[in-house]
Amino acid sequence: MITHEYDVVVLGAGAVGENVADRAVRGGLTVALIEGELVGGDCSYWACMPSKALLRPAGARQAAHGTPGTPPSVLEALDVESALATRDRFASHWDDTGQAEWVANAGIDLIRGRGRLSGRQQVTVATEEEEQVLNARHAVAVATGSDAYVPDIEGLGSARPWTSRQATSVKHVPRSLAIIGGGVVAVEMATAYASLGCQVYVIARSGLLQAFEPFAGKMVAGALRDLGIGVFLHTGVQRVHRTTQGRVQLTTTAGQVSADEVLVATGRAPRTDDIGLETVGLTPGSWLTTDDTLRVQGYDWLYGVGDVNRRAFLTHQGKYQARAAGDVIAARAAGRPVENGPWGRHVATADLLAVPQVVFTRPEVACVGFTARAATNAGYRAHVVDYDLGAVAGSSLHADGYKGYARMVVDQERQVILGATLVGQDVGELIHAATVAVAAEVPLHRLWHAVPSYPTMSEIWLRLLETNGRTQPQPRELV
Amino acid sequence: MITHEYDVVVLGAGAVGENVADRAVRGGLTVALIEGELVGGDCSYWACMPSKALLRPAGARQAAHGTPGTPPSVLEALDVESALATRDRFASHWDDTGQAEWVANAGIDLIRGRGRLSGRQQVTVATEEEEQVLNARHAVAVATGSDAYVPDIEGLGSARPWTSRQATSVKHVPRSLAIIGGGVVAVEMATAYASLGCQVYVIARSGLLQAFEPFAGKMVAGALRDLGIGVFLHTGVQRVHRTTQGRVQLTTTAGQVSADEVLVATGRAPRTDDIGLETVGLTPGSWLTTDDTLRVQGYDWLYGVGDVNRRAFLTHQGKYQARAAGDVIAARAAGRPVENGPWGRHVATADLLAVPQVVFTRPEVACVGFTARAATNAGYRAHVVDYDLGAVAGSSLHADGYKGYARMVVDQERQVILGATLVGQDVGELIHAATVAVAAEVPLHRLWHAVPSYPTMSEIWLRLLETNGRTQPQPRELV
Repeated sequence: MITHEYDVVVLGAGAVGENVADRAVRGGLTVALIEGELVGGDCSYWACMPSKALLRPAGARQAAHGTPGTPPSVLEALDVESALATRDRFASHWDDTGQAEWVANAGIDLIRGRGRLSGRQQVTVATEEEEQVLNARHAVAVATGSDAYVPDIEGLGSARPWTSRQATSVKHVPRSLAIIGGGVVAVEMATAYASLGCQVYVIARSGLLQAFEPFAGKMVAGALRDLGIGVFLHTGVQRVHRTTQGRVQLTTTAGQVSADEVLVATGRAPRTDDIGLETVGLTPGSWLTTDDTLRVQGYDWLYGVGDVNRRAFLTHQGKYQARAAGDVIAARAAGRPVENGPWGRHVATADLLAVPQVVFTRPEVACVGFTARAATNAGYRAHVVDYDLGAVAGSSLHADGYKGYARMVVDQERQVILGATLVGQDVGELIHAATVAVAAEVPLHRLWHAVPSYPTMSEIWLRLLETNGRTQPQPRELV
Repeated sequence: MITHEYDVVVLGAGAVGENVADRAVRGGLTVALIEGELVGGDCSYWACMPSKALLRPAGARQAAHGTPGTPPSVLEALDVESALATRDRFASHWDDTGQAEWVANAGIDLIRGRGRLSGRQQVTVATEEEEQVLNARHAVAVATGSDAYVPDIEGLGSARPWTSRQATSVKHVPRSLAIIGGGVVAVEMATAYASLGCQVYVIARSGLLQAFEPFAGKMVAGALRDLGIGVFLHTGVQRVHRTTQGRVQLTTTAGQVSADEVLVATGRAPRTDDIGLETVGLTPGSWLTTDDTLRVQGYDWLYGVGDVNRRAFLTHQGKYQARAAGDVIAARAAGRPVENGPWGRHVATADLLAVPQVVFTRPEVACVGFTARAATNAGYRAHVVDYDLGAVAGSSLHADGYKGYARMVVDQERQVILGATLVGQDVGELIHAATVAVAAEVPLHRLWHAVPSYPTMSEIWLRLLETNGRTQPQPRELV
């Protein structure tokens, strides 16, 4: 057994762990980064990258089809071989050499093996050769992420269900796929598999995209049906059975569904069941509850960053947390001031107020901040402003018969934007303008001076301001 | 001769005049809107709409071609008939019925005819039937726009050159087109005509897109050449001659160029030569110099809005001015307070600090605010941050081998963004995020909390922040 000393030990070398380590090194600390699978994590190999690589080609072809004069052949079925080959390339062929090089160049010590907490400020790693004990002078950061949550449905476990891992790394596209769930993974994978020529069924306990504004799920449900997908809403799955012929039979409250494979996309579970939480007084398999500096409540040396803290299941938000966590670990280690006021350098304030998300369906859904319902529930005096995104000149130029919708949620008191949601083709790049406005709490009277270019779709932001009206009281200093 | 009384008379019913009139009516005033051509103006019939309608289909097809597995047939030559028919549709077949209806529904009196100032607060309109004298109780707003400037080149005037009007409304695409100029109209029309199968030559006195960051013009020049366009930079046109065979011969400092038609795109001239400026003591054909409330200097009743004031030759910026002008006319008429401090409701502050622009070439160019050079010339302590837009994960997913570039100009003193420029496929919708940041003067330390969604191209904003570094002093209240 070898013992090493580091300033910081990071468990999990996904995008989040990498960023915690990088920021801590930049802050002058020594860092060990522990990974038992691939450096780069789920996002690189089993989530964002492969899923978007599967979705983009069909999206681009659909966009071209939406403009006049494009030959109809553009919509011919995707060549599955070529689509999967592209996906393989974006998943780096599940080879993490490039990521490991990045880690080394960043001055981070990568230790490959299974890492577990083994006491206060201590991690034990089982590598191929030996067991190493790593003592962390200042902090241990848990960035092990999450796994697909498999619900307790009779027969599901033994039916060899897919999770997002199999769905994004598949080698042979099945002829049919049943998807249990109605969230982002469900609708994105439904879209991807439909474009690969697979018959897809989506079985959702309630509506689709329940965390979003209601129109988002409705528009996506219509679009999935237009792709030939069987969409069963408000439908429970009672029993799942893998037949001897290898088919999957699902007994649902809406009847029987039969498919080659079944994908479970019903949420996430923390990947904390076997990382030694019990050795420091925490419960294995539980989420880690942190303060806004990402430090686990009740501990001065333990951090939970990314999915494990349940603040936001999004790579970009995990990376954002990682920057705050890496920086604050370095600041605390050096005795430098901690900037932990709202929107300070060392806190992840945006987790609570300005989380953006893009759903890469067709139409896309893009949102940031509060929905109208969430804002009201949070006690804001919220006002809703809606506009038909298809009525913007830029949209009609972008695609024939462009269909879209936009909502802005305004805090009546402070006259700032609490949230925004866009649904429509290619809205994914439009939302960042709202993210800046929400995160910076820019007053509406100032947003009138942020002029969108004509004729782009971004004029939706002007239309929403115009719809809201300019009759609000102006701040005194301008009068 | 009939005399009418209005609170406000607006000369010119383009997008700018329409918006001045609309805001004044909403402010409780009566408004006459005078138009001798089509209601809706250049933008609707001879600029933004038809030009973008000509550019979008080829752009969308190019985008599809850039993703794996798309059949090469997507790049087959555009069907010219269908492309022009689409353009006709977006130019409303040069029929302004819809716009006139909008004007009527907005409660504005549309008067069709040639309007001229005929003295203080007075406009005389020659309509088909009669001459009307309109007395303006509170204000006259000149929103007559600009014409293409035709430079003094030997033989050019008699060679029947095209301006942007002919280029956007053409019925038969010539086999070849020589374009004099290197600005936005030149590069957009070059791109459009090349995709219509026309052999294009661009002859520019200096480089392309000289008002932009230098890399923009360089990348667009390369792209034009890739489209088979002859690009002659730092080349002067000495003589133009229309031959008896109907060809145009251009004698340039780089040799002879011969084409079916010649397009002049060398700048704009104010459309003020025949609007009666002399009757109120101004010089016909001159630009109108205004204060930030768009009021002509030295007059308390005369406003110049849009291109005529030379502040920014952009529809969206003219509409922005129009909102301020219409509102301030109403406020002054009612004796309400004028909000004319920086970024107040009644001033067009963004004209000076936060003008966005999108050039719809392939790659697109999108920018806002100051270039590095302009910032330095304006006396800012400006710092430049560059990043390869193609190195962003979202870009590589968007198109194979995505090529792009990004620059952010930072005010070292205040730690805010002074300007940003993006070049690359589909960057047009990315710039509004920067426009919000520039117009709201959001400090960099706060922009770290505006998280871009992964994996979108908008992550360029994070990369630029990371490249700039997070070592700047934080504001005291956060420490």
